[in-house]
Amino acid sequence: MSARLLDGNALSAQIRSELQPGVAAFTARHGRPPGLGIVLVGDDPASQIYVRNKLKAASELGMRADLERLPVSATLDEVLAQVARLNASADHDGILVQDPLPETLGPHAARIVFDTIDPAKDVDGFHPVNVGRLVQKRPTLVPGTPLGVIALLERSNIPIAGARAVVIGRSDIVGKPMAMLLLHRDATVTICHSKTPDLAAIAATADILVAAVGRPGFVTPEFVKPGATVIDVGITSVTDAAVIARLFPEGHARREAFARRGSLVVGDVHPAVAAVAGALTPVPGGVGPLTVAMLLSNVLRAAEMVVGPA
Amino acid sequence: MSARLLDGNALSAQIRSELQPGVAAFTARHGRPPGLGIVLVGDDPASQIYVRNKLKAASELGMRADLERLPVSATLDEVLAQVARLNASADHDGILVQDPLPETLGPHAARIVFDTIDPAKDVDGFHPVNVGRLVQKRPTLVPGTPLGVIALLERSNIPIAGARAVVIGRSDIVGKPMAMLLLHRDATVTICHSKTPDLAAIAATADILVAAVGRPGFVTPEFVKPGATVIDVGITSVTDAAVIARLFPEGHARREAFARRGSLVVGDVHPAVAAVAGALTPVPGGVGPLTVAMLLSNVLRAAEMVVGPA
Repeated sequence: MSARLLDGNALSAQIRSELQPGVAAFTARHGRPPGLGIVLVGDDPASQIYVRNKLKAASELGMRADLERLPVSATLDEVLAQVARLNASADHDGILVQDPLPETLGPHAARIVFDTIDPAKDVDGFHPVNVGRLVQKRPTLVPGTPLGVIALLERSNIPIAGARAVVIGRSDIVGKPMAMLLLHRDATVTICHSKTPDLAAIAATADILVAAVGRPGFVTPEFVKPGATVIDVGITSVTDAAVIARLFPEGHARREAFARRGSLVVGDVHPAVAAVAGALTPVPGGVGPLTVAMLLSNVLRAAEMVVGPA
Repeated sequence: MSARLLDGNALSAQIRSELQPGVAAFTARHGRPPGLGIVLVGDDPASQIYVRNKLKAASELGMRADLERLPVSATLDEVLAQVARLNASADHDGILVQDPLPETLGPHAARIVFDTIDPAKDVDGFHPVNVGRLVQKRPTLVPGTPLGVIALLERSNIPIAGARAVVIGRSDIVGKPMAMLLLHRDATVTICHSKTPDLAAIAATADILVAAVGRPGFVTPEFVKPGATVIDVGITSVTDAAVIARLFPEGHARREAFARRGSLVVGDVHPAVAAVAGALTPVPGGVGPLTVAMLLSNVLRAAEMVVGPA
């Protein structure tokens, strides 16, 4: 283990405490706290945990945090009506609809719902006008995960300007906005994906390697230039013992934890990368907690943009 | 000279002739042709040439093509009012405001004006909602130059999927949308720029190299992998004899043309690259004519989207 571990929990706590004066000032000035409304449709267990974490973090910061629950049987119109109510609400500055939506709503439901959120309240940064403004390097609301990665790099004094950055994964939520944020900070950015030949060799040119593919242990040491910074965005709950055996040697504490619980949350980066990388984010405790911190930062920004700075 | 020359003039003519049935069908069905309105502010000589070419090409295709001229003394409000008239016009499906606007309108004028164009008529693809929809791989209006490059690659049977593509330049008009279009066709894309170290070495990894920097002869043979496809988006009118002497040997026909005229339009790619590249776009006669063809394609698409398919 040579890589410096980038502690996302500690930085998340720090960022949230830095937001506190802004939340207090806003509340004093406007007679109400910044407000976050989350729409949760159905009973997906992972979604319930994510939503609870977001609401708790917002409350702890002194924000208003409301959960609008809809049953798994809700129609698309009912979901859109809930979004419309939050759009019109004078108490809610930020809105997010927890992904994924139930499949019964149809394949385009998420897109239709995200398009309906007022861009000024779109704290997940999924509305096309916010995506476009990000590409145009204009002030906007940016998805929390790539924003958290930038915060982690900057606060850890890892230079971005002039660096070669490789992003593995081209999702709208992580890969593409990540590439834009790195590009705008003067990195030279390569976006790789499932159709990239020689992926390991390209990844190994990176000073900053961001893995966002959702495949446990996908990034092995041959993907990593010695001393590179490796950011692990993957979060997968593994229940297959064979996968765990590939990642952790017998007797390893995490393998034993898996044996006790029957599941283990792991990232896209193989543990052996720690011997090669210069810096590395753990999973859990790396990028995940920063996503929540940046969501709260977005709620405060959205509040300040709409009703004027606190 | 080993590189195959990719003839933009011929392909532009072909694409325009392919648009003709669509224009005729639209006109027959709706009792009016698809309409393009161009707003030109001031007397910039290059802009006047570009605008004339666009209007002429639209007219030749049977489209309505209107030029709305405003004096260099026009205020921003007058420009916005003109855009508002075209937004409201039932005869205009596509609107573009010729860039650059006079500097007297202020540094943010272009941004404010482009934001005002109805996204459904935004045939330059500069509105943030259209930029966002491009990133999200949704149907939208895409800037003509990167769209023309894709058409040139596809019609020339140059494989994009699985290719390594390097884009030099990160402008909103060319570099960034170019990267997105290549990525969505399964290329592995690297975006380079003025802050990229070892630019030549990175460019030389490309199967498809797109140069969009506006620096005459910037891409020299060491930037090019033997056999690569090189797309030259640069269009610079050079009046400095020393620059021409760097590009063309004594006795070269283009150097003599410069001596006669006192100026010469050249690209970002040094002529010596022709000995290394597998395929190459000339300047002039490469990407330029395709930009106009794709603009007309956008006008027809905008018309069909708004009033229903012809």
